[in-house]
Amino acid sequence: MKFDINLNSTDALLDTFRRHAAGVAVITTTFRDQPVGFTATSITSLGAKPPLIMFSVAKGASSYEPMLHAEHIALHTLGKRNLALAQRMAADHTQRFATSDWELGPHGVPVFPAATSVLIVKIREVIEIESNAVVIGEVLTGATGEEDEALLYQKRAYYLPGERLSEPRQ
Amino acid sequence: MKFDINLNSTDALLDTFRRHAAGVAVITTTFRDQPVGFTATSITSLGAKPPLIMFSVAKGASSYEPMLHAEHIALHTLGKRNLALAQRMAADHTQRFATSDWELGPHGVPVFPAATSVLIVKIREVIEIESNAVVIGEVLTGATGEEDEALLYQKRAYYLPGERLSEPRQ
Repeated sequence: MKFDINLNSTDALLDTFRRHAAGVAVITTTFRDQPVGFTATSITSLGAKPPLIMFSVAKGASSYEPMLHAEHIALHTLGKRNLALAQRMAADHTQRFATSDWELGPHGVPVFPAATSVLIVKIREVIEIESNAVVIGEVLTGATGEEDEALLYQKRAYYLPGERLSEPRQ
Repeated sequence: MKFDINLNSTDALLDTFRRHAAGVAVITTTFRDQPVGFTATSITSLGAKPPLIMFSVAKGASSYEPMLHAEHIALHTLGKRNLALAQRMAADHTQRFATSDWELGPHGVPVFPAATSVLIVKIREVIEIESNAVVIGEVLTGATGEEDEALLYQKRAYYLPGERLSEPRQ
């Protein structure tokens, strides 16, 4: 590192997250009787007891208002076989549910059975902060699909995991 | 997916995050005049204007109390060359700063110059929720290091990104 820590703050943030890789998920809910959803790269777990999850959604997104009002959502993790789904849920929001690869699950949330896993989540808290909302929810139930290589997003493209650098921790 | 969405909620969460991959970061601060820090797999950006970041820390962690009181932190993204650093910052907390690969940066936060990037962050908000704290901060400045393949964590081990599945979005 050139040890001048003096980048403009916005440039620093953008440069940093260009160097970061993230797992890919799809979040869905029902809003005004319509299925809505988006591709998220910000999901994280907040502990297993109680089982909590967290993600964020940007104010400009078509899913922003639905997420502010959601009581339940579905969170799907995606694998290699779900690349087209990830791309579709990040493109034109009027076409995201135009296919027949989803159905209504518990609490009326849209579920994609081809995902590697789905969680049915009850929203606990939505924190609006500047141009994003942070959503925290409690897992009610879920199901796992067939295992697959995890889908990654970095440098504005989708990737798969490659070389393993360490032994799995016990 | 076996379309029985009926897993126990804690099992559902654990099975889901076993299918998820995450980028790896190191968060540091100074607490009672001592450097403290940990390896985090929960960092995300909350928009670029203003430039905000978010991460979580678990209640059992040695860094939990320091993060509740921190005014400033440093957030580092890690690459392939930082594997040993990631492992050290996730192991015995008394040995995490026993080496000389760090120095004090702006606002007295410990900085690792070998990282791929560092952000200097002023804490805005700490939200305690069950067994975790969610920390939101505003980026003040930063620096980028030499580029490297991003370090990933999944299935309890460190990985590198592999095959690219899509063209980079413009």
